[in-house]
Amino acid sequence: MAVTVVGSIAFDAVKTPFGERERMLGGAATHFALAASFFDTVRVVGPVGDDFTDEDIAILATRGTDVSDVERVAGGKSFFWKGEYGWDLNSRETLDTQLNVFEHFDPKLSDASRNAEVLFLANIQPDLQLQVRRQCEAARFVAMDSMNLWIDIARDSLVKVVEAVDCVILNDAELRQLTEKPNVVTAAREVISWGPKVVVAKQGGYGAALITAGDFFNIPAWPLETVVDPTGAGDTFAGGFVGYVARHLDAIDDRDVLRNAMAYGTAIASYNVEEFGTERVERLRPQEIHARVNDLAAMTRFEPPALELREAAPVRTA
Amino acid sequence: MAVTVVGSIAFDAVKTPFGERERMLGGAATHFALAASFFDTVRVVGPVGDDFTDEDIAILATRGTDVSDVERVAGGKSFFWKGEYGWDLNSRETLDTQLNVFEHFDPKLSDASRNAEVLFLANIQPDLQLQVRRQCEAARFVAMDSMNLWIDIARDSLVKVVEAVDCVILNDAELRQLTEKPNVVTAAREVISWGPKVVVAKQGGYGAALITAGDFFNIPAWPLETVVDPTGAGDTFAGGFVGYVARHLDAIDDRDVLRNAMAYGTAIASYNVEEFGTERVERLRPQEIHARVNDLAAMTRFEPPALELREAAPVRTA
Repeated sequence: MAVTVVGSIAFDAVKTPFGERERMLGGAATHFALAASFFDTVRVVGPVGDDFTDEDIAILATRGTDVSDVERVAGGKSFFWKGEYGWDLNSRETLDTQLNVFEHFDPKLSDASRNAEVLFLANIQPDLQLQVRRQCEAARFVAMDSMNLWIDIARDSLVKVVEAVDCVILNDAELRQLTEKPNVVTAAREVISWGPKVVVAKQGGYGAALITAGDFFNIPAWPLETVVDPTGAGDTFAGGFVGYVARHLDAIDDRDVLRNAMAYGTAIASYNVEEFGTERVERLRPQEIHARVNDLAAMTRFEPPALELREAAPVRTA
Repeated sequence: MAVTVVGSIAFDAVKTPFGERERMLGGAATHFALAASFFDTVRVVGPVGDDFTDEDIAILATRGTDVSDVERVAGGKSFFWKGEYGWDLNSRETLDTQLNVFEHFDPKLSDASRNAEVLFLANIQPDLQLQVRRQCEAARFVAMDSMNLWIDIARDSLVKVVEAVDCVILNDAELRQLTEKPNVVTAAREVISWGPKVVVAKQGGYGAALITAGDFFNIPAWPLETVVDPTGAGDTFAGGFVGYVARHLDAIDDRDVLRNAMAYGTAIASYNVEEFGTERVERLRPQEIHARVNDLAAMTRFEPPALELREAAPVRTA
């Protein structure tokens, strides 16, 4: 089933302990599309400037992604983000954000994009997410991302978006902040009480948890020895997760579908961070993904044997 | 096989968002013993003061733990720690530490404690850990914990302890600090190059990772909706892990033994944090532990099906 993604297409300047890039292709919709395109046709909706080259477009179109709703704004410049990561890559500092063509972005979806059965609302201003959500009435599975900024300054709008989607994919700290619940399980239960059936709590280098009304599932991050650039890992994960769901849309209530979607998202994201920006996932091969998915299954599996434990009456009584 | 643990036996004053206790039984050796005693006889070595009551001793002796090497220092006061946790329990502030009888602790092990086949060096000053390690020549499996304080002020001694044990159990941030490696996998490989065969990286609410030369295994924390008091969770985990290993000492090179040890440690620790101090694990029942171990196996399991993914030649060439 085709997947429409609405979100940023950008140039990033990134410095990490392993090197830097002054200008590389990035943005949430870009990373999402490069991952989801392994599973199905992706339609990318978002604005770029005159500075966006034909090669950039060609990369975005990798594995058949439809770029006809990528709007080239004449005289405009593409969204630009500059950041630097600390030594353990767990902290990052934003040095510059230039919205450029995104400042007046008014999402216009073609009929084809509007009629996609799967929709991903990447992290943009929540009122725009809601506007897109309302345009896509045919969607059978809608997932969303967001960020702490919108929880801080546009929480009411953001909650309306949450209420209108099937799946929320957020960092666990964002989930806790959004719901004001101290713990990821209670935070996810709160989100589920607002409407969504599926909550994914991204935990950075620790992996991700999946919470539905009837299931809890956890998968670790792939144990990489070297992370070169974490930029886009979350969106790549979302692309793999949503792409897998799109391929299994008729079985979405099957617990195994969502669990395997977590594994595919995790595996593709692990490749994303091995090199700068989109460089690794551009040339990623299916067999490389399958290999890490199978390894993740093996490295989390255990089979408890029968075991007799000692017991004793407690010393304290009540 | 009997397990000797050397470490603190203490009174804790703890405040969390769910309540407070002005004085409760605590200490690393206490929490370790209460967990490890499900598997085998534990021998606790450590000093207490006159303030340590017969009931405290009786609780320490739960499930057959041998307390004959608990040294009651006449005129002394027991180790005391006071701390307060933040709203999400991920941060804690130490408000008071009184070493008391621990200040001049000189570990004297009885023959029985010295001859145990399994030894756990709980978090105490590294020179004392090394002294104990040298007394226990018969030990076939020695594990250790430590803390950031000793990495800061006694790193050389600490490295000597690491070199003399089979298994290091540390928080992942401590592992990275100790090895000056930015990532838990490279940090664990570094520790393995110093001597130990097994590294456990505790990740707090995210679970724990097990790294050996040939295996990587990860297990999430039990998804509790309410954590009442995290104090002692790490030592309880260590007690369950080391206790399980002690029961399977002849099969310790079997990957499944270490993986199941991780699961038992995780399950018992999840009960520990449900109530203050030792209150929950004192009266914990074997079937409750088995139930969570089995659930942990179920909530991490997935079976990837065969799946054809799309592929394309990369746009960029080299």
